[in-house]
Amino acid sequence: MIGPLAGREKAIVLLSGGMDSATVLYVAHSRGFDVHALSFDYGQHARVELEKAARLAAALGVRHQILRLGLDAVGGTALVGDRTVPVAGKAETRFGIPETYVPARNTVFLAVAMGLAETVGAHTIFIGANDMDYSGYPDCRPEFIAAFNNLSAVATAEAVSGGRRIVVEAPLMKLTKSEIIDLGTKLGVDFSLTMSCYAPKADGASCGLCESCVLRLSGFKKAGLKDPVPYA
Amino acid sequence: MIGPLAGREKAIVLLSGGMDSATVLYVAHSRGFDVHALSFDYGQHARVELEKAARLAAALGVRHQILRLGLDAVGGTALVGDRTVPVAGKAETRFGIPETYVPARNTVFLAVAMGLAETVGAHTIFIGANDMDYSGYPDCRPEFIAAFNNLSAVATAEAVSGGRRIVVEAPLMKLTKSEIIDLGTKLGVDFSLTMSCYAPKADGASCGLCESCVLRLSGFKKAGLKDPVPYA
Repeated sequence: MIGPLAGREKAIVLLSGGMDSATVLYVAHSRGFDVHALSFDYGQHARVELEKAARLAAALGVRHQILRLGLDAVGGTALVGDRTVPVAGKAETRFGIPETYVPARNTVFLAVAMGLAETVGAHTIFIGANDMDYSGYPDCRPEFIAAFNNLSAVATAEAVSGGRRIVVEAPLMKLTKSEIIDLGTKLGVDFSLTMSCYAPKADGASCGLCESCVLRLSGFKKAGLKDPVPYA
Repeated sequence: MIGPLAGREKAIVLLSGGMDSATVLYVAHSRGFDVHALSFDYGQHARVELEKAARLAAALGVRHQILRLGLDAVGGTALVGDRTVPVAGKAETRFGIPETYVPARNTVFLAVAMGLAETVGAHTIFIGANDMDYSGYPDCRPEFIAAFNNLSAVATAEAVSGGRRIVVEAPLMKLTKSEIIDLGTKLGVDFSLTMSCYAPKADGASCGLCESCVLRLSGFKKAGLKDPVPYA
């Protein structure tokens, strides 16, 4: 048996190292949660984002864990393996979804986060999912988050024994990229520590051409700010 | 874009190497599915079960994939890491659930299976979850499977674009251990290739003392059969 909760309420934050999850990290921290940041090494091309995630967590002084997941063996996406990351607007689609979609990625990430939350006694998971600027990824929509919360209500030991459930929050869901940049700036996010590019160069510079770079650059422009990261 | 389905309907089978998932493997195969078996190396003590899974898949001539998941870094269970596997009836409990529960294990496994199903074009996932003999693991109950199916209906590219959804089937859910042994025997499962023990000895022998061994031995006894695996 475990004793009563000691100290602050805990939260897991899914931290990719991109600008959205960096902002969510600061949202959770500013709300007073004892934050446990979680990143995944799943064979993505943009591995430099894991270093960014580590530096972001260090900047806030929160715990950070990187888990290895063999999703590269699953395949089905242009973000891992041998395939080439498409330039913005040129992605091939399958069922109308761009090939940069990683099958079931957010389901897997939230599932592992739920396990970690059970283990450490957290009841909140933060994710940077965003429905506004994105490309129709099925697992970045409010319906998906709602369905995951219905699952978590019957999936954890504490919830099914009449105790607290684990709830996923997606505070950026209805914000545009420029609104996310405004929010992050207000909360003190150092965007120079973030990386959004799907296909960064060897020196860490962003390509400026992939869909993620184009969205990011457009967001900074609309926010009236200069993106501090280097572009090739 | 992908072309029309060629050949038989595909299914993913979660294959642990235990007697339940072995029986489910044969259920899926006997129903005519083109089976893709999936196992996980998640740091479990009972790693010999992965060899059993490979031999079971080879015996049926179906594809088999083992994925590495860093769940040992999540912890919270007696099945991975430094903790000792309890003998039957002596497990410590947390929220009334034995310490052999792996937080969110089936959620993670089904999430990865969903990603693989999307990638290979399968629409059925088989899991050996069983509600009858088990210890109240939250993610082995029909409510959990139903909630996962509600999630998958809004989580995959094909489903959200008006196409087919991926459905999880748990054909053993309401069977007792002895009924599972009867079914497996009828379908031709070689139970000598299965392993249920949570804490096998170095020579591969089952301990005979953990909850999983005790359930298995009791099932074979009720079925009037001798368990073909060696015990210490």
